[in-house]
Amino acid sequence: MEHRKVEGGVCAARGFTAAAAACGLKAGGEPDVCVLVAHERCPAAAAFTTNAFKAAPILVTSEHLARDGRLQAVVVNAGNANAWTGERGMRDARAMAELAARATGIDAGDIAVASTGIIGRYLDMDKVAAGIAEAALRLHPGGSAEAARAIMTTDTRAKEAAFEGGGFTVGGIAKGSGMIKPDMATMLAFITTDAAVEPGELAAALRSAVAVTFNRITIDGCTSTNDMVLAMASGASEIKASGEEIAEPLRLLCSELARAIVADGEGATRFIIVLARDAATEEEAVRAATMVAESPLVKTALFGGDPNWGRVLQALGQAVKDADPAGVSVRIGGLKVAEAGAPVPAEGLELEKAVAGREVLIEVRLGRGEASAEVWTCDLTYDYVKINAEYST
Amino acid sequence: MEHRKVEGGVCAARGFTAAAAACGLKAGGEPDVCVLVAHERCPAAAAFTTNAFKAAPILVTSEHLARDGRLQAVVVNAGNANAWTGERGMRDARAMAELAARATGIDAGDIAVASTGIIGRYLDMDKVAAGIAEAALRLHPGGSAEAARAIMTTDTRAKEAAFEGGGFTVGGIAKGSGMIKPDMATMLAFITTDAAVEPGELAAALRSAVAVTFNRITIDGCTSTNDMVLAMASGASEIKASGEEIAEPLRLLCSELARAIVADGEGATRFIIVLARDAATEEEAVRAATMVAESPLVKTALFGGDPNWGRVLQALGQAVKDADPAGVSVRIGGLKVAEAGAPVPAEGLELEKAVAGREVLIEVRLGRGEASAEVWTCDLTYDYVKINAEYST
Repeated sequence: MEHRKVEGGVCAARGFTAAAAACGLKAGGEPDVCVLVAHERCPAAAAFTTNAFKAAPILVTSEHLARDGRLQAVVVNAGNANAWTGERGMRDARAMAELAARATGIDAGDIAVASTGIIGRYLDMDKVAAGIAEAALRLHPGGSAEAARAIMTTDTRAKEAAFEGGGFTVGGIAKGSGMIKPDMATMLAFITTDAAVEPGELAAALRSAVAVTFNRITIDGCTSTNDMVLAMASGASEIKASGEEIAEPLRLLCSELARAIVADGEGATRFIIVLARDAATEEEAVRAATMVAESPLVKTALFGGDPNWGRVLQALGQAVKDADPAGVSVRIGGLKVAEAGAPVPAEGLELEKAVAGREVLIEVRLGRGEASAEVWTCDLTYDYVKINAEYST
Repeated sequence: MEHRKVEGGVCAARGFTAAAAACGLKAGGEPDVCVLVAHERCPAAAAFTTNAFKAAPILVTSEHLARDGRLQAVVVNAGNANAWTGERGMRDARAMAELAARATGIDAGDIAVASTGIIGRYLDMDKVAAGIAEAALRLHPGGSAEAARAIMTTDTRAKEAAFEGGGFTVGGIAKGSGMIKPDMATMLAFITTDAAVEPGELAAALRSAVAVTFNRITIDGCTSTNDMVLAMASGASEIKASGEEIAEPLRLLCSELARAIVADGEGATRFIIVLARDAATEEEAVRAATMVAESPLVKTALFGGDPNWGRVLQALGQAVKDADPAGVSVRIGGLKVAEAGAPVPAEGLELEKAVAGREVLIEVRLGRGEASAEVWTCDLTYDYVKINAEYST
């Protein structure tokens, strides 16, 4: 089955409308609230952060989803995470669902709530209420782009993608730029499809897509309190899709959105692919690739265009404490630089070219088995420090 | 027993001489080789990196030490780590011991070898040989300062300390500035005492001192391939010290040197103490404090003088996945800012002052038990990125 890219983002699938509004949560007056609505209650699935201090909207959404695995809308704000806000935060998250319910006629229990922004501040609910009311009035099938803009925080680009194939469409929007690290449903992503899918099959397909996409990216190793990936299947295409049939386009879509998040990592100038091969287990491959991908020494070297592969080995040896150098090799941009405990002389100029582009491939072999894993990250730059030192996010 | 600070560093204890030379391994012509010699074979103990890819000098030193727990000298170079250098690297590390043996008349098997610098390059042994010969000719009891300078890489300050009490002295030198992370004997440190201590008791005392000092610091979460803490007890004071008697001054000394390493962290402008309390186990306290101390979001915020405590909670919730917000609180510089899942209003001005100084204290309580741990780190600054992006180290 071929799946081709189409326009329309989170509204590309039939049966969905969206809209955004600017209510003043973001200092600059950009859109900061959005609503996404399905034409009827539909099967939904989600993956949430594994952080112990789950934000109020995470708790409320997970309650709503647990009722019968169906949802009809999502309401989101950016500029304030509504996290570590206690009982008042829970009341505010529930109020967001109720405000969206009132404006759309949908049951509040069928509405997911998401927030992103600074932790530990209470929401200004007067502003939020005005924003939700305004957005709900303007819901339209071309609303993906404005919704994608409204959920941005330190993102510099809106993130949308959609694929069509087999008579149905999957599409989505995402945000995320810092506080990004695997091992959960990273950041915010909202996904729709017009395929008719059973809730259980949608959930399984989403879980497996997230496992190899959003959970394999890392910008700074920090798992947020507010991460959520949410999918809804409207069935409006009248094409029934099994879990297996929805899995591939879902993986493609998640991969596209996850890649967009890493490429827009805070201050990033390079997209870095770390591929760990010949590991004993997949868990070991992920651990090794992640340790390389999160090494500030590797990330700063690549920012500087320096093919300093000794730092890759340092990270590998830290991740896999019983690794045997005899079985280990490192390639950068396809050039072998280290093997069996000793350096492999590489052409200096070719090696420099291998790390000079926007995309850098680091391939490591562990010589311990047949498992492999790929982790995506970006470089660590002056601008990452600037963004996180000069602004409260 | 009181232990007071004294001058003299690694040669403060009777029975030790040291000297350094510049042999051209460092581009700028600074001293880069040093030799430290005891007046006779003496009990020695060491802690080595847990990195799987241990550098050749680590392997050679650990062989020499394993013979009978005694050593008489250490030879060190900076500017090249002699790591991931295969058989040739092992021959070079052995040759360093042999060159030092020839120049001092000491058995090569009684000489420890250490290296620090870039990974994956072969040593220029002609230069190293000249440096060792020159340093060995100049051994003197006032040689600590030059030895401390010779082992520096990206360090901006030489690190020496010594304490005297109970009739004996312990002293040492250390280096380390990047690639610094607990869970091993971090970086290079050479420690001497003139107490008479049994090898087994010295080893146990060193192990416990390292566990709560060098193993509780982190600059960038990166465990080097070359880390080593080595102690030698000359007995020249003719004072017999039990493991218990040597433990306290050893801990004081390691603490002083570890603190100096963090304060001189690459690009650091602030010294950050993360104290985790009321954890279920010491391991959990260390894990929680380390996650906060290694969070690039916390470290950049503190660089910017921003008391962004939401990022502290994000890290805690990532470290202790089943923590209950109800039992958790955060204090910054003694001011309570978060408790029981909700913010605690703190005076803005006071809070800003709490993060404005050279030293910042972050205290977190987990409400799960009685264990605690303290981890030291520094902030993440433009200069960390600059040092690691612009130079190959």
